[in-house]
Amino acid sequence: MSSTIGRLYRVTTFGESHCRGVGAVIDGCPPKLQLTEGDIQPQLDRRRPGQSDLTTPRDEADQVTILSGTENGLTLGTPIALLVHNKDQKLGDYAEMQKTPRPSHADYTYQMKYGIRASSGGGRSSAREAIGRVAAGAIAEKILQSAYGVEIVAWVSSVGTVRADNVNMQSVARMDVDQNIVRCPDTSTAKSMEDLIREVSDAKDSIGGTISCVCRNLPAGWGEPVFDKLEARLAQAMLSIPATKGFEIGSGFQGSQMRGSEHNDPFVQKGNRLGTSTNYSGGVQGGISNGEPVCFRVAFKPVATIGLSQKTVDFEGNETVLEAKGRHDPCVLPRAVPIVESMVALVFADLALIQKSREAS
Amino acid sequence: MSSTIGRLYRVTTFGESHCRGVGAVIDGCPPKLQLTEGDIQPQLDRRRPGQSDLTTPRDEADQVTILSGTENGLTLGTPIALLVHNKDQKLGDYAEMQKTPRPSHADYTYQMKYGIRASSGGGRSSAREAIGRVAAGAIAEKILQSAYGVEIVAWVSSVGTVRADNVNMQSVARMDVDQNIVRCPDTSTAKSMEDLIREVSDAKDSIGGTISCVCRNLPAGWGEPVFDKLEARLAQAMLSIPATKGFEIGSGFQGSQMRGSEHNDPFVQKGNRLGTSTNYSGGVQGGISNGEPVCFRVAFKPVATIGLSQKTVDFEGNETVLEAKGRHDPCVLPRAVPIVESMVALVFADLALIQKSREAS
Amino acid sequence: MSSTIGRLYRVTTFGESHCRGVGAVIDGCPPKLQLTEGDIQPQLDRRRPGQSDLTTPRDEADQVTILSGTENGLTLGTPIALLVHNKDQKLGDYAEMQKTPRPSHADYTYQMKYGIRASSGGGRSSAREAIGRVAAGAIAEKILQSAYGVEIVAWVSSVGTVRADNVNMQSVARMDVDQNIVRCPDTSTAKSMEDLIREVSDAKDSIGGTISCVCRNLPAGWGEPVFDKLEARLAQAMLSIPATKGFEIGSGFQGSQMRGSEHNDPFVQKGNRLGTSTNYSGGVQGGISNGEPVCFRVAFKPVATIGLSQKTVDFEGNETVLEAKGRHDPCVLPRAVPIVESMVALVFADLALIQKSREAS
Amino acid sequence: MSSTIGRLYRVTTFGESHCRGVGAVIDGCPPKLQLTEGDIQPQLDRRRPGQSDLTTPRDEADQVTILSGTENGLTLGTPIALLVHNKDQKLGDYAEMQKTPRPSHADYTYQMKYGIRASSGGGRSSAREAIGRVAAGAIAEKILQSAYGVEIVAWVSSVGTVRADNVNMQSVARMDVDQNIVRCPDTSTAKSMEDLIREVSDAKDSIGGTISCVCRNLPAGWGEPVFDKLEARLAQAMLSIPATKGFEIGSGFQGSQMRGSEHNDPFVQKGNRLGTSTNYSGGVQGGISNGEPVCFRVAFKPVATIGLSQKTVDFEGNETVLEAKGRHDPCVLPRAVPIVESMVALVFADLALIQKSREAS
Repeated sequence: MSSTIGRLYRVTTFGESHCRGVGAVIDGCPPKLQLTEGDIQPQLDRRRPGQSDLTTPRDEADQVTILSGTENGLTLGTPIALLVHNKDQKLGDYAEMQKTPRPSHADYTYQMKYGIRASSGGGRSSAREAIGRVAAGAIAEKILQSAYGVEIVAWVSSVGTVRADNVNMQSVARMDVDQNIVRCPDTSTAKSMEDLIREVSDAKDSIGGTISCVCRNLPAGWGEPVFDKLEARLAQAMLSIPATKGFEIGSGFQGSQMRGSEHNDPFVQKGNRLGTSTNYSGGVQGGISNGEPVCFRVAFKPVATIGLSQKTVDFEGNETVLEAKGRHDPCVLPRAVPIVESMVALVFADLALIQKSREAS
Repeated sequence: MSSTIGRLYRVTTFGESHCRGVGAVIDGCPPKLQLTEGDIQPQLDRRRPGQSDLTTPRDEADQVTILSGTENGLTLGTPIALLVHNKDQKLGDYAEMQKTPRPSHADYTYQMKYGIRASSGGGRSSAREAIGRVAAGAIAEKILQSAYGVEIVAWVSSVGTVRADNVNMQSVARMDVDQNIVRCPDTSTAKSMEDLIREVSDAKDSIGGTISCVCRNLPAGWGEPVFDKLEARLAQAMLSIPATKGFEIGSGFQGSQMRGSEHNDPFVQKGNRLGTSTNYSGGVQGGISNGEPVCFRVAFKPVATIGLSQKTVDFEGNETVLEAKGRHDPCVLPRAVPIVESMVALVFADLALIQKSREAS
Repeated sequence: MSSTIGRLYRVTTFGESHCRGVGAVIDGCPPKLQLTEGDIQPQLDRRRPGQSDLTTPRDEADQVTILSGTENGLTLGTPIALLVHNKDQKLGDYAEMQKTPRPSHADYTYQMKYGIRASSGGGRSSAREAIGRVAAGAIAEKILQSAYGVEIVAWVSSVGTVRADNVNMQSVARMDVDQNIVRCPDTSTAKSMEDLIREVSDAKDSIGGTISCVCRNLPAGWGEPVFDKLEARLAQAMLSIPATKGFEIGSGFQGSQMRGSEHNDPFVQKGNRLGTSTNYSGGVQGGISNGEPVCFRVAFKPVATIGLSQKTVDFEGNETVLEAKGRHDPCVLPRAVPIVESMVALVFADLALIQKSREAS
Repeated sequence: MSSTIGRLYRVTTFGESHCRGVGAVIDGCPPKLQLTEGDIQPQLDRRRPGQSDLTTPRDEADQVTILSGTENGLTLGTPIALLVHNKDQKLGDYAEMQKTPRPSHADYTYQMKYGIRASSGGGRSSAREAIGRVAAGAIAEKILQSAYGVEIVAWVSSVGTVRADNVNMQSVARMDVDQNIVRCPDTSTAKSMEDLIREVSDAKDSIGGTISCVCRNLPAGWGEPVFDKLEARLAQAMLSIPATKGFEIGSGFQGSQMRGSEHNDPFVQKGNRLGTSTNYSGGVQGGISNGEPVCFRVAFKPVATIGLSQKTVDFEGNETVLEAKGRHDPCVLPRAVPIVESMVALVFADLALIQKSREAS
């Protein structure tokens, strides 16, 4: 297991769906930051299930507790442990799952890797694992906002083939994103997405999509060539989120079809700094932020758990048919928005601290 | 700078284009592996410029020397230092570049990050930085081949909008890839790619593209949830390669448009193991290899250096026009193929050793 | 803050004396190990205050809870989070301390480092910080015992100038150590130590001492040259324990006065392996275990908190006199024994896993 | 192998005695530092053999070359690779050694760990391994001197039972240390040490000793609780040096015999900062520097290679007698002085950069 990320802002997450709790320990949070549970809870609330009839109806309160590292509402510079209790620790009705690995779940690979697996399936591949990330990310975001004014805004940019292409990267705000239950700031497209998700849900199926993210007000200079380039660290962070299958920054895959003469971003004077007139680079050159907005997109596959029956084989190789019981999330995208934002914040907080160690004292 | 990658197979690269040499130190290579320079040179030869009239004509011999870590053709388990001398250490005619950051190069960001930059431009963003990666990757590949029979094959799957879609993932071999100068195993498409590159070159422009890669014979169980999931580590490795803008594994961005009922990979018995009948997952579930081929794709932007004149501003903000002199590589894709393979090998060698520490002794 | 130790068996501790709780997250514990709180509690009980009238009388139950990483009494291979609640979270009567840094405490250095400090003083320099280490170490010890039969036994080998020199390194057991309250297996010396501690306690003073430790049944081959040599990692681990001032292995400082002809350990055949007839090396050569017992000694300074009045200056530089109120631990040595054992176990579990990754599969 | 040390100032060393070369790669050196080979060579010269008739007479020039990371005499912030060629790469007359592991050498443990070993014996346990450390340490020292005025001075404080106790910690300088061939600034004691070493040398034997070190002008605040406390990192660094058996800081083992009332260091006003009137703490409290000089001592065992014949057994367990041929170093202490200084510098440069990342920008 490798549950720690970051070099100076180091986050270790723990917990699976049916143990006592999930959470994180943050080692390296700067001292004297104002911090209470109230700074963390909002992003957890955006992640939790049961926010709308589009997502899984199980109500999980997910109240976070700060166990250590603060006093009188200020960080001490010492490790901050965060805990969210699991409500339901009963090991449920997973008998069938014990016999048959669910297609495209982690049941099989966890078994092959560890020789054991949580009775609820893939253990740490549970959606609840993200709680630790989101909590730690909320703190990272507070650091970035207070020290640099960094803004991180993610939204659902496509569900299936329904795409929202008209989002203003310069101005889109989290408030715009939250104005509808699919978390797409393009209102008319949001309606189409919602319709599609309902249709898929009725069909006992699931659907994938993409999340886009823009990060504004980064100073130039973040990112550590060559292996911890800003985009390399972002890519790792995004592909560590369950169900992700792709990452692209700036022009991305589309840019691979372009010519240098159109793709190059010419420099222009912007106030008292150099900027670029286009931003095909996505805010990064040579692995280092250039002061323009960092923009990227993440692909999510459709959720593996579906109500439709599936032909597969059990661990012994015998053919069988699986059918998921209960209601399930037909589309994780709306709830994954805060997870994407949190992972970005974890990466940037770390890169910011590393760069700070380099600056003239 | 963060020039080290890996936890147990740890590689540190060094060098920029105009210093005495470039190379790598590998810490953690298993002992008693047969190894001489002859195992490393072939991949370096595939990377070096001047292989065909399509790539930059500067001839760089790039002969590697093993400085340490072997004796009598066997590894000792101690650090293996690899060195390739730079031929041309003269600091050339970069006067103009000192005044004006080249659009979409790393000149500007290196200056902002370090307060200094190599006179040849972005220093470690030089193409020669990859030499250390390729050398270290060749050794990693030998480990993977000898211990597990792993095969890693990458190829140019698109140049601009010319795509090679008919490549057999089960059988494509490096020999097939090298049968033409664009390194595309689909011969007729290769011809179109070559034509396109020549046209772009004549226009003093550059063009992007994608590289696809398949990795066969991985055992199930590699990858370390949650932050060092196999796909997360691959994504980081790929996005650390200069000029990359995107990464997708398995169904990738296309998969985000699918429904769970089509995307889920049903299990089937394959010989004495479980396999899947489709492979939208790309060989990985929950961040852990499942025994199916790992397939992914990487997007490269067009090279930033072009002969066409470009309007931009200098460091002072004064408008100016840049025009690159000499001949330049219109398309880096063919030479990036061994770099992609090497970075994959670095990731897998590390994950293999970590998993080995977990297996019952 | 650097609260993580280890590369494959990675432990992160958290918590200070007046927050909600203290604990640890263990990332990398092998799967399928039998584990319940009952495996951890005994060492915590040996560490906690109030075990005898020699140690601080505050009763702290220190019951550990496993929050994650196990199911049905077996480890899952996922992070194991351990939590011990702090009973007393009231921020006490530390007003004077806020004005005046206590001599030889960490009040001053924490303030200088972080610009803030816990109102109870040095925050993570609190004795309660060790709880996370001891809990994580108990699990490490179980791994080492079950997989290798490793035995780790530490004891108080001196208090002030009272030394216990007659302890049989081949046979001394934890049971022998625990037969008296000073944790010295040499019974007659133990009595003298106890008398000395009482005398010091009556004088409202404190006293230092040393702890010795022997580790038996390590296989040859543990330790990672050059910077993670077995003795280097042990030295780091020991000097990370509060109040330690020295570490020596094998012949130690005494060995620096010897000649090679007496100090060299000749090889002899021992059963089916090579051993040595003497063990001045302390079980390690070139940073790697040689199969002989690993023996080392740790120096602890006298506790800084004393009842006697002390002349010093406050943060403003004004002269003042400090006098600690209440009863305090005159000698931490007996309670530090399980901490030493735990830190050894953390180091060895990590080195064992790393070496396992190297062994032929 | 674990040949990398440090988190932000990261040094990776490579090389054994009979390969092409030894050296180091430094990743994380701050940019814009003036640096040429001339800054590094003096400490290498102090380490190399053949400096006097007291040390091994083999002349090794050990000229260092900077391969990368600088331009026009300034660091670029990119990895600095340093190389020293090995003169004698012939695999010598080590036939006997192949059959019989030398007592208290690493021949046996390297064989057990790696299943192979360099024909010259313990490979990385070679004295030449230290060259990379010393070269990297010289650069670290330059950083510390230029940014903080830190002074690091080590000297031979004992050889066998001959001790130099009259060294002024406030003023001792490297010049004082180098005024005699044993590197002991106490001139009369130096003469006795020299006599003792000659006597031991004539007897074909070897002798151990201790090195003391003082570090002045550290600011308060360096050191990362809890596992990377300043003294923990120093202890690791020192015990990673070949032949070391012990480390103590401040009062050390002697302090374990003291009472709190004498050991506590009262605070006093010193100019515009708080200092302490005594320094039993050795400049560190709670793992963090307090602004007073950091003082420590390291124990070295006698060199294992001696001319006297030794009874032992070969790898098969057959009794045999070993007798080292040629002349060997009877006492490594004088040459180990720059190694100790270099390792201190590596630790401090890293801790300084980490603390810098925490300071308000």
